Amino acid sequence: MRVGFIGVGAMGGPMARHVAQGGFLQAVWNRTEEKSLALARDLNVTCAPSPAALASQVDVVLLCVSADRDVLEVIHSLLPEIRQSSIVIDFSTVSSVTARQAAELLRARGAEFLDSPVTGGVEGAHNGTLVMMVGGQLSVLEKVLPILQTMSRRIVYMGDVGAGQATKAVNQVMAAGINQAVTEALAFGEKLGLDMQKAIDVISGGAAGNWFLEKRGSTMLEGIFSPGFKVALHHKDLKICREMAKHLGMALPLVEMTVEDYEKLIAGGFGNEDISALYRIKKDP
Amino acid sequence: MRVGFIGVGAMGGPMARHVAQGGFLQAVWNRTEEKSLALARDLNVTCAPSPAALASQVDVVLLCVSADRDVLEVIHSLLPEIRQSSIVIDFSTVSSVTARQAAELLRARGAEFLDSPVTGGVEGAHNGTLVMMVGGQLSVLEKVLPILQTMSRRIVYMGDVGAGQATKAVNQVMAAGINQAVTEALAFGEKLGLDMQKAIDVISGGAAGNWFLEKRGSTMLEGIFSPGFKVALHHKDLKICREMAKHLGMALPLVEMTVEDYEKLIAGGFGNEDISALYRIKKDP
Repeated sequence: MRVGFIGVGAMGGPMARHVAQGGFLQAVWNRTEEKSLALARDLNVTCAPSPAALASQVDVVLLCVSADRDVLEVIHSLLPEIRQSSIVIDFSTVSSVTARQAAELLRARGAEFLDSPVTGGVEGAHNGTLVMMVGGQLSVLEKVLPILQTMSRRIVYMGDVGAGQATKAVNQVMAAGINQAVTEALAFGEKLGLDMQKAIDVISGGAAGNWFLEKRGSTMLEGIFSPGFKVALHHKDLKICREMAKHLGMALPLVEMTVEDYEKLIAGGFGNEDISALYRIKKDP
Repeated sequence: MRVGFIGVGAMGGPMARHVAQGGFLQAVWNRTEEKSLALARDLNVTCAPSPAALASQVDVVLLCVSADRDVLEVIHSLLPEIRQSSIVIDFSTVSSVTARQAAELLRARGAEFLDSPVTGGVEGAHNGTLVMMVGGQLSVLEKVLPILQTMSRRIVYMGDVGAGQATKAVNQVMAAGINQAVTEALAFGEKLGLDMQKAIDVISGGAAGNWFLEKRGSTMLEGIFSPGFKVALHHKDLKICREMAKHLGMALPLVEMTVEDYEKLIAGGFGNEDISALYRIKKDP
């Protein structure tokens, strides 16, 4: 299978490198051409002049961009040249609705689509240890498994098109709530004058224990907010969740609260910090 | 050291049993006398007729009751008979202010006080695996360590009187937030029509992973809310946290939200269910 990779930024770049090391990568394309040129030279693959040109020469198109609009733009621009029975796999975090739209556009041209958002962040992309949550046809996933395995330590089939994005959305909602929980509790503890290192330690071992407390608790108390996972990106994801919930006629109070807090952080110039920067607001509202 | 135990309910009962097995227990007292009578007979110790009578015959008084008022009531009633250099250790979850009041009352009579709230719940009390967060004088803690070790797998010295309660308060705030995070995210996922067992599994392995999701995620989806940790008790603890925050001039938005939700649950007759019953509200607000 010949593979093309569209969107070789902070996540897509290292992911494409793993696909190349697996012997699958044929071509790359990126909106900012310097990135794709440098990577293509480095990996000894083609730097395609357009998404269409890339799609015309591969069997599998991998996609890692930022927003819903970017995904649909790329799909539209590669449609005229997409080959019969090609497979497009989208790693971006977007809405289930966008995933279903992309799948329909491609199906009309005889091509397949999988939504496969990831968790594990930039470190996971570099180390090839991303977790992938996949929606689409299982038979299609089975065909591309060897490609995905170059980038991922865990690939979970969630169901029909959109189910990958839905799972990622649930994950992002939970991450927002846990960020609220940990930052509020630690700000409270600090105001109480506790030895916070001891407090983190003892709380981690009990029923309130969580990954975020263990990994980000100490750094947030020291005022270190290097990402990690950027406020601006989580903000974008939570707005997608909010839209999805609106379609379901459902309220997500923690998400509302967190979107508002993140907007304060972004306005204050902290959008590129780790999401644990929410501690700034909890400490000093 | 001769030890007396006041308050032998769901927590105190099994805790007293461990102290007896360690060879320290001399007497018990309980507001509802049937409980202390049965336990005293079972453990072959004295069933004291009053807190004062109990205090008069031991070196160390252990205390495990429900609310701030109960703690102060017991302290007042044992004060006339407390022995010089006695040590009172309170396992109840109450406010730091109450802990400091208790310590002052006892100090005036030449006795010592430690606040030592616990985590680990009824299972931890039965298995002798509670975690204890201790405030007071370290030299006093060192004296009673062999007694505490009969009930606990981990004893952490947090600082001056009240520091144990402050740590427990931070833990309860975090637990409230995580309950909000997990129930909101899982209700969202279920509305999205996801295979929730798979979703819990994949989310548990990532940056949103937490104890509560792993232990209570599946049961809440099945509508099983057997405690665990009762809504009514967490509600009581969160009202203590709210008071403490008020003294600090600090807002705890997650705590406000959770107190309100718990009050709905209690009004609906669900106060004796596990705190994961918050899922009822998230699913059907």
